[in-house]
Amino acid sequence: MARIEIRIELKKGVADPEGKNTMKTLESLGFEGVKSVSSVKVFDMELDMSEEDAKKAGEEMCRKLLANPVIQNYKVIVR
Amino acid sequence: MARIEIRIELKKGVADPEGKNTMKTLESLGFEGVKSVSSVKVFDMELDMSEEDAKKAGEEMCRKLLANPVIQNYKVIVR
Repeated sequence: MARIEIRIELKKGVADPEGKNTMKTLESLGFEGVKSVSSVKVFDMELDMSEEDAKKAGEEMCRKLLANPVIQNYKVIVR
Repeated sequence: MARIEIRIELKKGVADPEGKNTMKTLESLGFEGVKSVSSVKVFDMELDMSEEDAKKAGEEMCRKLLANPVIQNYKVIVR
């Protein structure tokens, strides 16, 4: 059994309204020194296969379903 | 400058419709061996303070804004 983490981030330069709004709200709550907030989507998965196959499957999942290659980067991490 | 990752996960036993639907769709696309899919929300932040203070600030952000303690667990990781 392999455990993978799939991280899907916005590419540099793509607007991140969730991150921006979170940062504004944190500031309005009195948090100081917050320089940047980026929102990231993560899927944790258990796959019944080798770690090598799981990494490949995770990357194919991103290409076929999970990520939008125009605005997002993805990374598959075996844990 | 400290960089932290805030991971917000659903507690065990709490329904995860996003994870469930992702798993179903992956299966319908022909991916085999997928045993579980959990959706996780992550915020990457840069904070202008020490790593120790950043970890404390991240935990306070979760308590005050980012996490719902009834259904979610959070973890602050200094990177």
